[in-house]
Order: sequence, then C-alpha cells, then structure tokens
Amino acid sequence: MLRLPIRRPAALTRGLRSALLLSALVCGRASAQDPLPSWNEGPSKKALVEFVGRVTKAGGPEFVAAPERIAVFDNDGTLWSEQPIYFQVAFAFERVKTLAPQHPEWKEQEPFQSVLAGDVKGALAGGEKAIGALMGATHSGMTTEEFQKIVLDWAGTAKHPRFQRLYTECVFQPMLEVLAYLRANGFKTFIVSGGGAEFMRPWAEKVYGIPPEQVVGSRGKLKFELRDGEPVLLKLPDPDFIDDGPGKPVGIQQQIGRRPILAFGNSDGDLQMLQWTTAGAGPRLALIVHHTDAEREWAYDRPSPIGQLDKALDQAKARGWTLVDMKQEWKRIYPFEAK
Amino acid sequence: MLRLPIRRPAALTRGLRSALLLSALVCGRASAQDPLPSWNEGPSKKALVEFVGRVTKAGGPEFVAAPERIAVFDNDGTLWSEQPIYFQVAFAFERVKTLAPQHPEWKEQEPFQSVLAGDVKGALAGGEKAIGALMGATHSGMTTEEFQKIVLDWAGTAKHPRFQRLYTECVFQPMLEVLAYLRANGFKTFIVSGGGAEFMRPWAEKVYGIPPEQVVGSRGKLKFELRDGEPVLLKLPDPDFIDDGPGKPVGIQQQIGRRPILAFGNSDGDLQMLQWTTAGAGPRLALIVHHTDAEREWAYDRPSPIGQLDKALDQAKARGWTLVDMKQEWKRIYPFEAK
Repeated sequence: MLRLPIRRPAALTRGLRSALLLSALVCGRASAQDPLPSWNEGPSKKALVEFVGRVTKAGGPEFVAAPERIAVFDNDGTLWSEQPIYFQVAFAFERVKTLAPQHPEWKEQEPFQSVLAGDVKGALAGGEKAIGALMGATHSGMTTEEFQKIVLDWAGTAKHPRFQRLYTECVFQPMLEVLAYLRANGFKTFIVSGGGAEFMRPWAEKVYGIPPEQVVGSRGKLKFELRDGEPVLLKLPDPDFIDDGPGKPVGIQQQIGRRPILAFGNSDGDLQMLQWTTAGAGPRLALIVHHTDAEREWAYDRPSPIGQLDKALDQAKARGWTLVDMKQEWKRIYPFEAK
Repeated sequence: MLRLPIRRPAALTRGLRSALLLSALVCGRASAQDPLPSWNEGPSKKALVEFVGRVTKAGGPEFVAAPERIAVFDNDGTLWSEQPIYFQVAFAFERVKTLAPQHPEWKEQEPFQSVLAGDVKGALAGGEKAIGALMGATHSGMTTEEFQKIVLDWAGTAKHPRFQRLYTECVFQPMLEVLAYLRANGFKTFIVSGGGAEFMRPWAEKVYGIPPEQVVGSRGKLKFELRDGEPVLLKLPDPDFIDDGPGKPVGIQQQIGRRPILAFGNSDGDLQMLQWTTAGAGPRLALIVHHTDAEREWAYDRPSPIGQLDKALDQAKARGWTLVDMKQEWKRIYPFEAK
C-alpha cells in the first residue's frame, strides 16, 4: 500500500483512495499492492497470477469452488533450504550429541560414531539405512508432547552453519508470499513433505501459517497407552509411512482425500505428486523450484545427492510444468535479507 | 428466526428487530435463534452451550484460540444410526450381491455364501475376520476415484430397511445442529470413525458439512501406479490402519496433529479418544450419545454386539463425561421427521 508521509484532510485522502482504487481496477489488483513483491516479473509469477485469476473468476470457464482449491507444497528445498544437509538430519545429529552420554555404545557404532566425530560424510555414507537408524534413535522413545518440546527448543536455538540464522529463518521469502497469496484467494495450503510430520508441525503454523492438520509428512509408529492412568502417545522407532516419491499421492489421498489443483516441489521426490496433481480434470498448475543460485543459496539439480532434480526436470520440460529459476526470478531469497 | 407473514413498513420492521435484539441481549443468544432447536433444555444442551461460551469468551479464563478449537466426532451411532448393522457393512453386502456373478466361488465360501443367501447373522458369525474378508473383497481392486463413484451411487439409492429412507438421511438432526453450532463458534469439526475414510468422504461434506480433509477413518493400503501413462491410486485389500479404540488417538495425532478440546462418541470404540481429549490442559468436554430410545431409534448399551457401550459408560459416570439421553433430550432424531 502507498504510505503517506503526512496526514491529509479526510476528503483529500478519500479522493486519493478513490483514484488508487480506480487505477487498481484498471491495472489489475497487483498494481495497487503486489502480492508477490519478492518475485521478478518473470514467467513463474505470470503463471501463478494467471492461474489464480482463472480459478477464482466467478462464472468463468475455469472457476474452481473454494473447497476444491487445494494447494500442496513440498518443504525441503521448496519452502526452506535443504543444504548442506536436510535440516531434519541436522536436528538428528544434534540429538545424537545430546543423547550420547546415555549411549556409550555409539562411540563404536555407525552412523553414530561419525556423527559424534563431526564427520557428516561418514555419517551419511550408509545411505538410507544410516538415516533410518539415526531417525529411529533420535525420534522415538518419548511421548509426542515431549518430542514437540524437543523440536521447539531446537527450532528456537539451532543455527544454520552458513548463515548463522535459525533454521526456521532459512525459509524462502518468495514462497511465504505464494502461500499467503493463495490463502487470500481461498486456497487451503498443505505441506506434503518427505520430512517428518511431527518434526514440522511444532513450528509450521508460526513460520508458514500452515496448521498441524494441514501438514502431511513421513511418520513413525505411535502407541497409545495409559501411564499411571494418564493417556500418552509413545513414539516408536519403526517407520509407519514414508511420504516421498510415490508415497506423496498416497499421503495426499489418506490425509487430504481430494486431489490438489496446484503442486509445488523441487526434486524427483515430488515427481509423482506433480503427476497426480496435473492429471486431474480442469485447471492445474505444477511448479518446480530450480536451485540455480550458487551465490545467494545453492545451485544443484541432476547429480545432487540432496534434492536431486533429474526425472522431474525432464518431465517439467515435456509437460510444460513451470520451472522457477531462483537466480533470475527471486529478488530475495530469505526474509532476513535487506529488501 | 421469527417469520413475519406479511410485509411491514421498513421502520416498523426495524423497530421489531431492535426489540428482538434487545430481548436476545437480555436473555442470551439462544432465545433469539436457538442454535440447538432439536435439543430439549436438558443437561447435555446446557453442558454444550456453557462450554462453547467459556472457550469463546475473549479475555475469559478459559478462552481457547480458534485454531485450537478442534472437535472430533465418531460417526456410527454418533452422527448417524448403526442399527440393525453398521451402514458400511450394509454397503459391503450390497457390493457382494453386485459382484457375485464375477465370483462363482462365493457360493460356497463364507461369509459370502451367507450374504448371498440374505443371512446377516450367518455372514457376521465369523466376527472380525469375516468383516475383514468382506471389506477386502468389496473395498479393493479399483482406483480411489472408481470407488468414490461406487459409494456415491450407493449413497444416492440404497435405503435403510426400517425407515425406507436413504442411509444418508438416517443422520441425527440434533448432531447436525451441534456441528453447525460449533463451526459458527470457530470450531473445526472432524469425523474420527472406525469406518473407512474413503467410504465417508464422498458424502460427508454434503451431509455433515465436513470436508474430506477433516475425515479421519480406517483405511486400506493404496498403491500409486501409472496406467498407460495416467497416474492412479489403486485400493489394495490389505488394511493399513484401523481407526478404532486405541487407534483413534493415533489417527487424531497422525492426521490432525493436535489434541481436540471436545470429543463426541457413543461406544467403547470411542473410549480412548474421550480419554485422550479430556486429559489435555484447559477446558475439555466429552460427550456420549446414549441410545435409550427403542421407539424412535434403538435402545442398547452394555451387551450390544454393535456399538457396545460398557467401559465407556462406567468411565463417563466416574469422570463426569456428559451422557446424552437420546430419549429424554432429543426432540427429533432424524431430519425427515415432522417438526
């Protein structure tokens, strides 16, 4: 909104307001107050604004009723950064260090030994099995409410090694604007992430405006029990569901129960979610954050061990999905950057 | 609202409106437009209205912010009837009859043989195993979208044997009012049912005003695959999650991710959900529909094979949970009854 430096008589302000309103009506809403100020006027912003215009135009041929305006977002690499390692893995590493005194056996047991020695590469050398062992050991053995406190403590203190900012500050300003823009247009925004739902929920409402019931993620098994008559939900070490790749449409169906009309991802783990979203009838939009900015963030795609974007990059080109060129299209990356 | 039989001059109407508003302010909101007109002025209505008043009173000691106003409802026996058999079982029986020509082996195989002979008791004699076999055979082998159409066809045609009304009309009018009343007061209403989520979602939005993403239920395994390049979700026969008993708090945590402040059930299958809800900090309300009306609906509790209410009945008395006496407290049972 235009900010007036001095107070003016009410009648003048009213006149100014009418003029602004008129110019907004003539030039389209965005000119009065750009809902996506951190986006350059590139193809992605155009695709987003045009799509929202089409599905919200009452009486238009592509109008979509508000309850059907479901938008799904991957988290790692789409809403926040995922380098140099997935932030949830950084959380697990910190938990290993905290819990080490209670686990003397970890000194001679991988991947814990490497984590304790500060050897990230060694810790992750065991691939999925090593990550599974880390997650099982650090994400279970407590109640859901105890885990929530642990996550909140971490989110309020742990800092990203490159930026020396809280991890929850290393979120993408342009994506915060997309979330708010869609919600202002009657969309319901969901996270659909390979990360743990219980890891994201404690801070996602504050950071993204996305409430716990709109977070779909991987999950471990839970067990209900009465402890001295008090009901608790215990987090068990076994995985219950992995919300990644072909798991994403499954997680969407299980938890949301209807097909999204807009999906935003950044890696091959989002491929099936993008396929599922765009195969529905009526207007559909699929977007991929392409990490092209080695200066301000990171540049990676096909050969990256984290956030690999290979098959989905081919399909994006073949199917006309929108590739967001981070370097070209984003004015700002993080909220903490100066405007 | 008061309905005026003739048009009056605007000023008079305004005067009348002011008088009504004044009387509403003096007598409390309910007197101007009772949000629960099918409820007698009994202890349950009082408990509901007082609870909603407390948690929505801004600045009050028990105020609960809107996002935390999560209310969960069992479905079978709480939002609609469950006699003489669970409606989803009636649906499965009908599917068996429809599918029988493709399954000649069913003529000599239980529980299918009994279903085809119209012998309900025989069909259910095998207990949970028989029901599992019925569900597996009738709720799988198609895509989620094909199943949705099958359910909608059934919901639009199949009639309850006693009332000769659509099953989706055999819902409880007083409970529809509770759902609407809570939503009007900023609550988010969820179904948390032992029934199948995919069975409830196709009609729950129209019938209860509850969208698919607010339906938590039992579910079968799903498989994502590409069929001639077209992505589909296949319904597999194996159960993935049973949302009943101790499964209900687990389902709530997995899908909603925060603890409800109000829970409404009717049977021992809801016991842990009621325990979990009421054990949280701050104001909590637990209610149980007690089926006491053999004339207008059914009367059953402790020894019933369907909707058994035994342990939860004891706990309701011990813990001060609100027992809704259907016969005494409900003016109407179904929407199709004359007012």
